[in-house]
Formats: sequence, C-alpha cells, structure tokens
Amino acid sequence: MGVDIGGSTVRLALADLSGAIIGQSSSGLRSDRSPKAVTSIIAAGIRQLSRDYNVPEKKILAIAAGAPGITDVAAGQVLSAPNLTGWHKVPLRDLLRDKTGIPSIVENDVNLAALGESWRGAARDVANFVFLAIGTGAGAGVVLDGRLHHGAAWSAGEIGYMMLPGLSSEAPAHLRLGALESVIGGKPIEQAWAQLNGASKSGKKLTATKIFDLAGEGNTRAREVLSRTAAFLAMAITNLGLVLDLSLVVLGGGVGSHPALVESTRRALADNEFARPHVAVSSLGPAAQIYGAIWLALQTADEHGFRRGGVRRRRAGVSNS
Amino acid sequence: MGVDIGGSTVRLALADLSGAIIGQSSSGLRSDRSPKAVTSIIAAGIRQLSRDYNVPEKKILAIAAGAPGITDVAAGQVLSAPNLTGWHKVPLRDLLRDKTGIPSIVENDVNLAALGESWRGAARDVANFVFLAIGTGAGAGVVLDGRLHHGAAWSAGEIGYMMLPGLSSEAPAHLRLGALESVIGGKPIEQAWAQLNGASKSGKKLTATKIFDLAGEGNTRAREVLSRTAAFLAMAITNLGLVLDLSLVVLGGGVGSHPALVESTRRALADNEFARPHVAVSSLGPAAQIYGAIWLALQTADEHGFRRGGVRRRRAGVSNS
Repeated sequence: MGVDIGGSTVRLALADLSGAIIGQSSSGLRSDRSPKAVTSIIAAGIRQLSRDYNVPEKKILAIAAGAPGITDVAAGQVLSAPNLTGWHKVPLRDLLRDKTGIPSIVENDVNLAALGESWRGAARDVANFVFLAIGTGAGAGVVLDGRLHHGAAWSAGEIGYMMLPGLSSEAPAHLRLGALESVIGGKPIEQAWAQLNGASKSGKKLTATKIFDLAGEGNTRAREVLSRTAAFLAMAITNLGLVLDLSLVVLGGGVGSHPALVESTRRALADNEFARPHVAVSSLGPAAQIYGAIWLALQTADEHGFRRGGVRRRRAGVSNS
Repeated sequence: MGVDIGGSTVRLALADLSGAIIGQSSSGLRSDRSPKAVTSIIAAGIRQLSRDYNVPEKKILAIAAGAPGITDVAAGQVLSAPNLTGWHKVPLRDLLRDKTGIPSIVENDVNLAALGESWRGAARDVANFVFLAIGTGAGAGVVLDGRLHHGAAWSAGEIGYMMLPGLSSEAPAHLRLGALESVIGGKPIEQAWAQLNGASKSGKKLTATKIFDLAGEGNTRAREVLSRTAAFLAMAITNLGLVLDLSLVVLGGGVGSHPALVESTRRALADNEFARPHVAVSSLGPAAQIYGAIWLALQTADEHGFRRGGVRRRRAGVSNS
C-alpha cells in the first residue's frame, strides 16, 4: 500500500507484488489534520480499497507513507511538516502500524517521488540524479550511487534556500522564503509577471504555468519571466552538478515540469562546459510519489521476510544517516 | 604504501598493518613529469624506503596513490591533472603495478585527504561531511553515509566553480577561474589586499596567510579581506549544507586551514538557522592525503585477500559511480 499525504489530500494506491497498481483512492483532509485524524483517514481508505478490490487486509504486506515534511525514516517520525500545522516529531510509522496491524514505513514525499522516478520513471538505471520539485516552493530528492541520500538530520535536498548570483545573501531562516524559492516558486513568478505588466490590460493575474504557456506562444513579457526563472534554475542545477557530479536532473511539480521551463533551462545549461547534467521532465507526474511509496512498501515487505519475484531488490535504497 | 603526487613533489609513506607510519620520504619532480617518469620516481622511492626500513618489497601489500586531478578509481586512470601537463587518461594504477609488482589503486588527492580526516583526523566517526581544501584553488572531498561520493564521472566536489550571491553568473568553463575560487583562492585574496592598499606603504605584496595573520592582529584592511573571504566561504558551506545536510565541514589547505579564516567563517555561519554544519580545521594538515592513501592501501590489501586486525574495515569507503 502506497500512501501520499499532501497538504489537503491523502492518496492511496494498492499494488500487487509486481508493483502494478490494483486500485487507487483519495480523501480530502478536513479541518482536523492532526496525526490521529490523518491516521484514521488512511486506515479507513485502506479498509475501503481492501473491500472494493476484494483483497483481504491481512494480505496487505506493508504500508509506505510519504509526508510533506522532514521525516526521520529510521525512527519512523515526521519531524516537521509546514503544511500540517502542529505536526512535530509525529511517530507516524507506529501510528499506522498500531491502527492497521500492517508493517509500515514513512518517508519524505519528495524523496518518494525521486524513488518513483528511479523505479518506473525518468531516472531508471541512473545512479546519480536529483529529483527537483518546483511548485509553490522547491525541494529535492537526492539519489547518489543508487541510494537516497538523507543527510545527517534527514533534511538533505533543501535546495529552496540555495544561494545564487543575483539573489539575497541573507542567512537562511525558517520564517523567510528561501533565496531560490523566492524567484522560481509559483508565487514569485506570478508576482514578476504582474510587476512587468504594471496596470496594463494583459496584466491580469495569471498562474505560473499559464505565464509559461504564454511564453511558449511567443509573448515577450512572459518569455522574459520564463528565461529569468530558467536562468536561476540552471544555476542551481550547475551548483548541484559541480558538487555531486550528476548525470541527470528530473524536474517535477506543477511549475518545474512545464515544457517551456524545461526547454529554457536546457538552453541555459548548454553554455556550461561541465556540470551540465541531462535535464528530463518527470515522466510520472503527480503519480511519482505514489510509485515511490509502492516501491518502498515492496522493500519493506521484503525486509519483513516476504520474498517475491518481479521487483528487483534495492534498485534505489533507503540509506541510514 | 601511501603515495601523494603533488604538482612538484612526490611523497611516500610506508605504514604497517595497523596504519602506523614506519618511514616517509619525498622526491622533487624534475622537468620530466610524464606518467612514466613519475612512476619511476615512485618505484625508486618504494625501493629506497624498503631498504632504509628493512622491509622486503614483497612484504609491501598494496600501493595507494593520490593524483592532483580527476581520477577514475574503477579504471585506475588519472583522467586529467591540470598541474601535470599532458596527463590525460593515464593508467597510473597499472603503471605502478607493472613497475613494482604490487597491487595498486589510485584516487584523487582531495578525496584521499577526506579519507585521511575520516580515519585519523577531524572527521572521525562523522558519516556526512565535506573536506574543503583551499590553496591556490578550491576543491572538496564529499563523504556521505560514510562513503566517498565520486559522482557519475568521478568529478564530484568541484566546488571551486560554485556560483554564489555577488559572484559571476557566467557558465563554468575550463579555461576560466571558478566563481568561488576567484574570491577565496590564494591569488584573489592577495589581489584584494593589494587593491585595498593601493600605492600605500603597507600595501606591499603579502601572501594570503600573511594577510590573515595581520587580520588576526587587528589590521582593519586585512580584516576586511578576511571577512569578505569568510562570507563567501560561509555561503558555499551553506549551499553544501542545504543540499547534503552535513554535520561537519573540515577546512584544509594553506588558505583554508588558517585559524582566522576558520573563526570568521564560523561567525558568518552562526546567522544560519539551519544548514549550519560544524566547521573544523583539518587536524592532519598536509599529512591528510598520506593518511588517506595509507587507509586506502590497507583496504586494497584487504580486498586482495589479506586479513588483518587493528584497522576497522570500510569505515569510509570507495563507492562506485
């Protein structure tokens, strides 16, 4: 069972032992987003999927759940999650296991997306890559030598705060928008567009993806916003490439996977004589997390003694800190 | 046998199976720095050490050699080495083995320094750290989850080109100085000092370390140069911390290990609410590479079937790309 906990929705996918999805569901999060409420929603969803697809719950071998925050995989805790108020050191793994009786594991959602792309998406057979999600903010899943890199305190991949030429040199702070996020996130792109257009007629409020659509259609101002965004994204990818020597960066998220941005970023990177990883679009889109969760659930089932065929073991991996 | 090939000197250290150094030597590189000449110098040095310390050559179980350039550990090749003209895809591992009959391994010198600090230096028992060497240029050895990270094409750690606020946004190019190097390397520091002093009397040409000494003694202009250098270094460390979630950065090299720079960098990092790794000075200094080489030679001996006590196996490791 793969689970993706978003800011407003919980998605579930029941898969067989080859990793093929049998059934999916999603539930909106109500006003009560407490760990207990979210756990109950997941448990109810599992029960429902189990009934709908006639798979007895005791045949569900593992649950892997992705959380939108810093997650200590070893301790099974969501350490913090900005979009889930009050989530602080939540023992989600044990909550799920206790509620369902099924072996569970938790992981950060962007990390799961990286695992998904590694298993079934744009990063298949790539040992060193970064999955870079850009939506309202920016975050990354870092896969090195075929294993997810978590870092010393489970917070590797915080690239939203990366410092680059032309950006603020202020020290990163929790309550301040990250330097990189402040130019490549959805909101700043919309603001840049609004500013460029001033009070003009065409200056009506547009989403970042609409602005990029316009750029693709040749709109000059939109192209200006696009190429500025791509220039910063290319510099961030350059820094990642310099430090990590990547062969691939996979762009995901509503903003990150826009074809015009991807194309423009590739063009900007073409000037690099080195630190120029291949740039691919997420091929799984919003399903990347769920695929990553399924992969991780299969690993977890495996580690709990269930041997199976069909899925290669430890293609990508969960490494210790 | 640990070997450190520098731009002008080859250093050798003969160690016993506990890793204790029995004897050391160094030989200057003559005008002929061809792979064949360097191999001969190393072989002659080994023969001499073997005689001087009465250790038969056939008892030397492995040679690990560090080269000042991008090194493909798996293929045993030095891919390029800017300070050794004409070194391009040099099969140094096989050259050494064929010349000496001793199992050999080659590695990048900064990576060896990182391994040295991990084994016997400032990074003992630290799973996630970066060794950052600053001299004329800047380079890094990246240790993640206890293993050296090499990257997709053996060139991870090229941080001399890192792009930061206030620096050039030009694409990295082989013949251009790296963005970060152009402010924190020895030469740029000396130039900044000269520029600040103009034609004034105190403006005589000083080395970077002398300038930092002056800063430590309270000289205002020198402090200006120091704090500017530290600010950039702190931003580079911040970016590394954001991406990799490090618990430690070890500063090495003639410029990097200066106490005033280390202190000033720590102060600059103190403003970070996160991405604030502990900053330590290399505790092995110029010997870090040789210690790393000895550690790697011990691993290599181990892999060639020699079991020994005294050295824990695979504390840090050489990972595949």
